[in-house]
Amino acid sequence: MRPAVILFSGGIDSSTCLAIAREEGFAPHCLAVRYGQRHERELEAAAKVAEALAAPLRVVSLDLRAIGGSALTGNLAVPKDGPLGGIIPVTYVPARNTVLLALALGYAETIGAEDIYLGVNAVDYSGYPDCRPAFVEAFEKLANLATAAAAEGRASYRIHAPLLRMSKAQIIQRGVKLGVPYALTHSCYDPDAEGRACGRCDSCRLRAQGFREAAVPDPTVYSPR
Amino acid sequence: MRPAVILFSGGIDSSTCLAIAREEGFAPHCLAVRYGQRHERELEAAAKVAEALAAPLRVVSLDLRAIGGSALTGNLAVPKDGPLGGIIPVTYVPARNTVLLALALGYAETIGAEDIYLGVNAVDYSGYPDCRPAFVEAFEKLANLATAAAAEGRASYRIHAPLLRMSKAQIIQRGVKLGVPYALTHSCYDPDAEGRACGRCDSCRLRAQGFREAAVPDPTVYSPR
Repeated sequence: MRPAVILFSGGIDSSTCLAIAREEGFAPHCLAVRYGQRHERELEAAAKVAEALAAPLRVVSLDLRAIGGSALTGNLAVPKDGPLGGIIPVTYVPARNTVLLALALGYAETIGAEDIYLGVNAVDYSGYPDCRPAFVEAFEKLANLATAAAAEGRASYRIHAPLLRMSKAQIIQRGVKLGVPYALTHSCYDPDAEGRACGRCDSCRLRAQGFREAAVPDPTVYSPR
Repeated sequence: MRPAVILFSGGIDSSTCLAIAREEGFAPHCLAVRYGQRHERELEAAAKVAEALAAPLRVVSLDLRAIGGSALTGNLAVPKDGPLGGIIPVTYVPARNTVLLALALGYAETIGAEDIYLGVNAVDYSGYPDCRPAFVEAFEKLANLATAAAAEGRASYRIHAPLLRMSKAQIIQRGVKLGVPYALTHSCYDPDAEGRACGRCDSCRLRAQGFREAAVPDPTVYSPR
């Protein structure tokens, strides 16, 4: 089986991507990035999900706090209970998906993979510009100019974004069929000390709404706060 | 003065870029990346040059060793005394300039800059694919799709690569006119314990050749090895 790199966070979207990549005939290699985010809990989930799905996981550390600019990396408060979608939220991390895809590209080149899976989805993108189809296409073009492997004709890179036009509910329904262990996944931007979800940040509410609309029991453990 | 981000390593090229950005009317903000490279010495030089030129410097830490693939980040030996140019050397870091530009873009968005300076040059690029003009253009297109600032019409990013068609000698001659303190810069891939240049790696030899061809005295301190 040909290797593929999965940009992996241990959330619903990237965990479903992992299962889809395998269904599509690839040997998935997960890459998670510790980017100074508040949600270190995410990386624990990433390790559990990757283990459950028998995929190798690499973790790259990147301290984005030095460049600031987001509630997920800096000192801004994570917003709760506000409206979903429409505007770019303070949880936006500057150029995040560009940085993550660049790292995935480097890893792909190192392990001889030509395929990178990214779990962005347009429906639920909640205002992040680097989740749009045009962005994904522009990165694919860049990848084929950026690497030694492509320059030497040894590789042609493809960025797969199989969730791009799916709702959270559709993603969950697909994942359930593929055996994704959603109970191990984590989505909350602001978990409590025991790692339980707050239930009130944008990410928690999109997740809960997804399970509800998919008519799948929500396995999330919520904080009693 | 409008701010510009300078991708900064403390070497000849990025130090010259800093001086050019200022000459072109920008307030330069340097961004250096500690990417697990062997040449930590580079970052000391970066701090000295930035201070000498009165520009602020931020350092982002990124541990690229987790994804391996280069003599500069992994366990491969730095080659000495071999032919220069023509093939992609083992000092190539997978997707390096893509990663560096992505970080610069995030920093630019955070400080409200729309201009990023990158010191790549085609003549001396020594086989690195991500130093070519087509790569730089593709990244500029990506930048204008990737960020909240561009999505909201608040910014239009430009990637400046003013050295792209210059030889090392031309770069040095330009920098001497602009007062770049080349004695503080560092280029060697494999310095000794005192931080002195080896004089034999590709980077040292391109640097020495540049000073020679520019008819400028080489201020580099070489190891007596």
